[in-house]
Amino acid sequence: MPDTLITSLQQAQRDFARERDWEQFHTPKNLAMALTVEAAELQEIFQWLRPDESAALTSAQRQHLGEELADVLLYLCRLADVCAVDLASAAWDKLRKNAEKYPADKVRGSARRHDG
Amino acid sequence: MPDTLITSLQQAQRDFARERDWEQFHTPKNLAMALTVEAAELQEIFQWLRPDESAALTSAQRQHLGEELADVLLYLCRLADVCAVDLASAAWDKLRKNAEKYPADKVRGSARRHDG
Amino acid sequence: MPDTLITSLQQAQRDFARERDWEQFHTPKNLAMALTVEAAELQEIFQWLRPDESAALTSAQRQHLGEELADVLLYLCRLADVCAVDLASAAWDKLRKNAEKYPADKVRGSARRHDG
Amino acid sequence: MPDTLITSLQQAQRDFARERDWEQFHTPKNLAMALTVEAAELQEIFQWLRPDESAALTSAQRQHLGEELADVLLYLCRLADVCAVDLASAAWDKLRKNAEKYPADKVRGSARRHDG
Repeated sequence: MPDTLITSLQQAQRDFARERDWEQFHTPKNLAMALTVEAAELQEIFQWLRPDESAALTSAQRQHLGEELADVLLYLCRLADVCAVDLASAAWDKLRKNAEKYPADKVRGSARRHDG
Repeated sequence: MPDTLITSLQQAQRDFARERDWEQFHTPKNLAMALTVEAAELQEIFQWLRPDESAALTSAQRQHLGEELADVLLYLCRLADVCAVDLASAAWDKLRKNAEKYPADKVRGSARRHDG
Repeated sequence: MPDTLITSLQQAQRDFARERDWEQFHTPKNLAMALTVEAAELQEIFQWLRPDESAALTSAQRQHLGEELADVLLYLCRLADVCAVDLASAAWDKLRKNAEKYPADKVRGSARRHDG
Repeated sequence: MPDTLITSLQQAQRDFARERDWEQFHTPKNLAMALTVEAAELQEIFQWLRPDESAALTSAQRQHLGEELADVLLYLCRLADVCAVDLASAAWDKLRKNAEKYPADKVRGSARRHDG
C-alpha cells in the first residue's frame, strides 16, 4: 500500500533542513543520538508512574506524549531518509519475522519469551 | 492525507498482541521502555563510527539499521495506539511548531539554536 | 573523603585504552553514546517485569544486572576522566542541590514533585 | 580497596529517600528508567557537536556535564543499593572480563572489535 505519510514528512523535513543549512548536522550518527534522546524524553513521562497510572494519562500528559511521539517519529523518518532505508518495507518485514520468531501457541501469555 | 501505513501496522500489532495474550505487557510504561531500548540498539550501530563512516554504511550495516528502524517504528505505533494518540496529526503539528520556533533566517547554519 | 575506587578504575581504564590504541575512539561524544547504550541494556532487564517482579530478581537476573551496572559505571568513569570532571565532587554537589530543591516537608510522598 | 565514596553516597541517598517517603517510587524498574533518562540528558550535550568540539567543551558545558554525570552516578548507586549489588566488585570483575575478551594484540586500533 502507498505510504503517503512518511514520504510526505520526509519531503517536508528535507526542505526544513535545507532552508536552515542544517544538513551538515544531520549525519546518521547525530540523528541516531537525537532519536534516543527523544525516546528518553518520552519515557520520562512514565518514569514514576505506576502501571495503572501510565494507562490513565491526564489530558496534559497525553498532549505532552503526543509531542514526544512526534519528535521520535520525525527523527526516525529523517534518519531513514538520510540512510535511504525504506521504513515501510522494513516494518512489514520485521512484523513477519516476529510472527515466525514468536509462534502464538508457544509464547502465549509469557513475558519471558516476549521481545516485541 | 490518509495514513494507511501507520493504521495498518497498528491493526496488525493489535492482532499480534491479542493472539499471544501479550496485551497485559503492553502498558504505556513498558512500551515506552521498549521504545528507548530499541532506539539505543539503533544508536549502537553508530557508536564508534566517525561521522564520515556513519554516512557510508556497508550493506550489512544498512540491513541491520533497517531492522532497528523498524523496531522503533513498531513500538512507536503500538504506544500511540494504546494511548489513542493520532501520530500523523502530532507529527504535522510538531513540524509546524518547529518552523515557528526556528525561523530559517535566524538559525541558519547554527547548531547552537538547533533542536530538530 | 578519599575516593579510591573511581580513581583506581580510571587508571586501569587509561591503561586498557592505551594498550589497545583505543584512545582515538574515546571521544566524549562516543563515550556518552556508549553510556546511554549500556543504560538501555540495563533497563531492558526490567522492561517487561511488573514492579513486584523487578523487586524480586532471580539469581541469574542479579548477576546480569551486576554486569550491566558495571558497564555503566565504567563508561561513566572513563567519560569523567576524559573530560577532567571530578565525579565525587559533582555527586556531592548534586545531592546538596537536590536537598534544597526538594525540601522534605514539601514533597513528602509526592511523585509529581519528584525528580531524583 | 575500601570504597568509601559509593557506600557514603548510598547512605546519604537512603536517608534522602526515607525523609521524603520516596522509597515507594524507587523500584528497580523505575530507577533503571531514571538512569537511562539521565544518560540521555548527558548525551544530549554532545548531540550536535563534531568530535573535535566534543573534546573542547566550554566552561559552561563542562559544568553542565558534571551535573549530568552526577545524576547518572547517583541513580546508579541507588539502583545498586536497592538491588544489593556490590558495584565495586562488579566493576573490577567486568574490567577483568574485558581484558580477556579483547586481548591487546588482537584488537589494537580496531573499532570493529571494540566494545568497551
